[in-house]
Amino acid sequence: MSTPLRLGIAGLGTVGTGVVKIVRQKANLLAARTGRPIEITAVSARTRDKDRGVTLSSYAWEDDPVALATRDDVDVFVELMGGSDGPAKAATEAAIGAGKHVVTANKAMLAMHGNTLAQAAEAADVALRFEAAVAGGIPVIKALTEGLAGNDITRVMGVMNGTCNYILTRMQSAGLPYEDVFEEANQLGYLEADPQLDVGGIDAGHKLALLSAIAFGTRVDFDGVELEGIGQITIADINHAADMGFRIKLLGVAQMTGRGLEQRMSPCLVPKNSPLGQLEGGTNMVVIEGDQVEQIVMRGPGAGMGPTASAVMGDVTDIARGFRVSTFGVPANQLEAAAPARAVTPAPYYLRMSLDDKPGALAKVATVLGKAGVSIDRMRQYRHDDSTAPVLIVTHKTTRAALDEALDEMTRLDVMATQPVALRIESV
Amino acid sequence: MSTPLRLGIAGLGTVGTGVVKIVRQKANLLAARTGRPIEITAVSARTRDKDRGVTLSSYAWEDDPVALATRDDVDVFVELMGGSDGPAKAATEAAIGAGKHVVTANKAMLAMHGNTLAQAAEAADVALRFEAAVAGGIPVIKALTEGLAGNDITRVMGVMNGTCNYILTRMQSAGLPYEDVFEEANQLGYLEADPQLDVGGIDAGHKLALLSAIAFGTRVDFDGVELEGIGQITIADINHAADMGFRIKLLGVAQMTGRGLEQRMSPCLVPKNSPLGQLEGGTNMVVIEGDQVEQIVMRGPGAGMGPTASAVMGDVTDIARGFRVSTFGVPANQLEAAAPARAVTPAPYYLRMSLDDKPGALAKVATVLGKAGVSIDRMRQYRHDDSTAPVLIVTHKTTRAALDEALDEMTRLDVMATQPVALRIESV
Repeated sequence: MSTPLRLGIAGLGTVGTGVVKIVRQKANLLAARTGRPIEITAVSARTRDKDRGVTLSSYAWEDDPVALATRDDVDVFVELMGGSDGPAKAATEAAIGAGKHVVTANKAMLAMHGNTLAQAAEAADVALRFEAAVAGGIPVIKALTEGLAGNDITRVMGVMNGTCNYILTRMQSAGLPYEDVFEEANQLGYLEADPQLDVGGIDAGHKLALLSAIAFGTRVDFDGVELEGIGQITIADINHAADMGFRIKLLGVAQMTGRGLEQRMSPCLVPKNSPLGQLEGGTNMVVIEGDQVEQIVMRGPGAGMGPTASAVMGDVTDIARGFRVSTFGVPANQLEAAAPARAVTPAPYYLRMSLDDKPGALAKVATVLGKAGVSIDRMRQYRHDDSTAPVLIVTHKTTRAALDEALDEMTRLDVMATQPVALRIESV
Repeated sequence: MSTPLRLGIAGLGTVGTGVVKIVRQKANLLAARTGRPIEITAVSARTRDKDRGVTLSSYAWEDDPVALATRDDVDVFVELMGGSDGPAKAATEAAIGAGKHVVTANKAMLAMHGNTLAQAAEAADVALRFEAAVAGGIPVIKALTEGLAGNDITRVMGVMNGTCNYILTRMQSAGLPYEDVFEEANQLGYLEADPQLDVGGIDAGHKLALLSAIAFGTRVDFDGVELEGIGQITIADINHAADMGFRIKLLGVAQMTGRGLEQRMSPCLVPKNSPLGQLEGGTNMVVIEGDQVEQIVMRGPGAGMGPTASAVMGDVTDIARGFRVSTFGVPANQLEAAAPARAVTPAPYYLRMSLDDKPGALAKVATVLGKAGVSIDRMRQYRHDDSTAPVLIVTHKTTRAALDEALDEMTRLDVMATQPVALRIESV
């Protein structure tokens, strides 16, 4: 098998440049591993004349990614442009239509259009792979789809946005408020152009939607992900959580329940001695639980040139070796349309509120919780100098529905100085 | 593609029974994932009449695993008997000779005969897969061989013997001496019939030899693994290490050096806040470092019915899907014969010794170290009531060769009450 596998790469930012470097520098290694040469025949990017630190002159240039995707001398279209629609989607569709395999790092595109793209790819009998789209360099899609194929997956969890984890761990280590660390992250270039993609949990939510499709054999359902960002987390929350033995993480959790597929991406408390609790900075972690394998934890860099290019090359080498697996682990037309279940799995919650310093304020809150069936495990009222009293409550296990009923009722009390904040305590 | 894939399973202990259960219980899931039915046609074990909690009556029975391996109605020979030679090897060779794929959990057989078996399998154009042989349920072979195929691997490390990690962490948590916890582990059935396989590091060394072959594209070289067991570790070592911020782990490390392939399986000190340092009980962990991906950490159960059967099924489903990858990631006849390098990578070391309580004893030790070019980072002499003084030394980075020279010289001093113990401090 010595026919070369010919790549056409669209998008020459950090990741695209990283892929070019690997293909150029590791030709022998890749050929030994896959049994055939891997070559780049053509590239495309928005600007041609830009020093990217790699020589591109031996590759054909296309201004139009659709033209690149459909070239006769391209076997695999490597889509590294990004964006859920526009050129990325057009070129991906064109590539599939022209019978090319596709490797992409585009979580937004797959979160939005993964079902139809996977169906198109399978109808055209080409591969559509996306290891780099989820958790950077961690080969988690491969682990779920292939290595753990003998399992019924019971739960998938992940910290999959390095920027959010950087912000939360930096708030803790430096004792700085959210706004300051957010600005710091911005200066460091860690934030997307639209920061809500990061701190609003959208980027991580895209990744969770892809993981849960694979884990549970369900259609990609990004709309079914309950999203909550980290903007409301205060340094006080982080310190209170630490006092109780927890860390706060933007945690994605997907599990199949009797009432449908539960997908949540929200700040949660996790035990500080757990692998998730100990995750610092921009590193990603995915936890996979299966009925056979119990629990597998995978940890690694969630972004960056080398790690993301490594994931792209994992897909490319699989294609070179002739591996073919359905995009989401089972054929796209067999993916189930699971009903979205809104946080039906009960859990304890952490509640932070400020009460007006009036007699009976706490009693009113406790009464509201009791009426909704939410029982209190621990409660603390902190010393305070002004007219509002900070109060922390940890509940026993409750459903989010019961809790929301209580929270809703509380806002109608005349003693709430601010909107209460509720964070789930996830057992990991 | 609806031709069934037919398994012949030899060995119906814990793992074999687990595989039978998965194939029986998950027929639809496996067919959806692989595109074809997976069936068991025949089984073999030492005793036929034994209640294993699964129905075997629908499968043909073979007393002889060689007969099983060569049956016309078997496509994949699943070898779960164990043992480096004897029936396991004979049946594996017979299966390959008969053109059957082989899936095995047999680390000893592959550590001893992996090169020739892989060559035979590749000559016969059949798969020889062994995910279950290394780190139980963790899909680490797949990650190294496939997911990270775009990397030059720079170092692989692993805690891969759950029994040793159980003993070491239990010594620490219960404050019990090695002998007591060893006996406890024995009572719990955690130890192999020959306990040296566990506590002598042999079992973990087998796994390391397999991992390093894959990581570096080298011939399996178990003889090149420097083996050191945990029998010399005292509760005092564990406590001293903890005082300095470390944990002691039976850690395998493989890395390619300018002077050959370094493979070590030995008790090491690792920072207690690192993922390796935080690993408790029987859980396994593998750390993979690559030039692109930086560092990937994988953690999961190292043994047990479900986890090991999960790994076996990962290989089986790959074969069902038609995936074919060389046993050690590159064709067996391209694996390099790397010279074994004995611990050439410098590191700091922890030294524990007992000196006779005589004036000048410590000076003599320090002089010997200095002469060998080993410089001292920290030193502590502990209070003592008898005639020997416990002394701890942490060296600056040194080669093992220089250290051994010093240790050798020390034994000739007239002040050493016991043989010194030297443990490497691995940077992780």
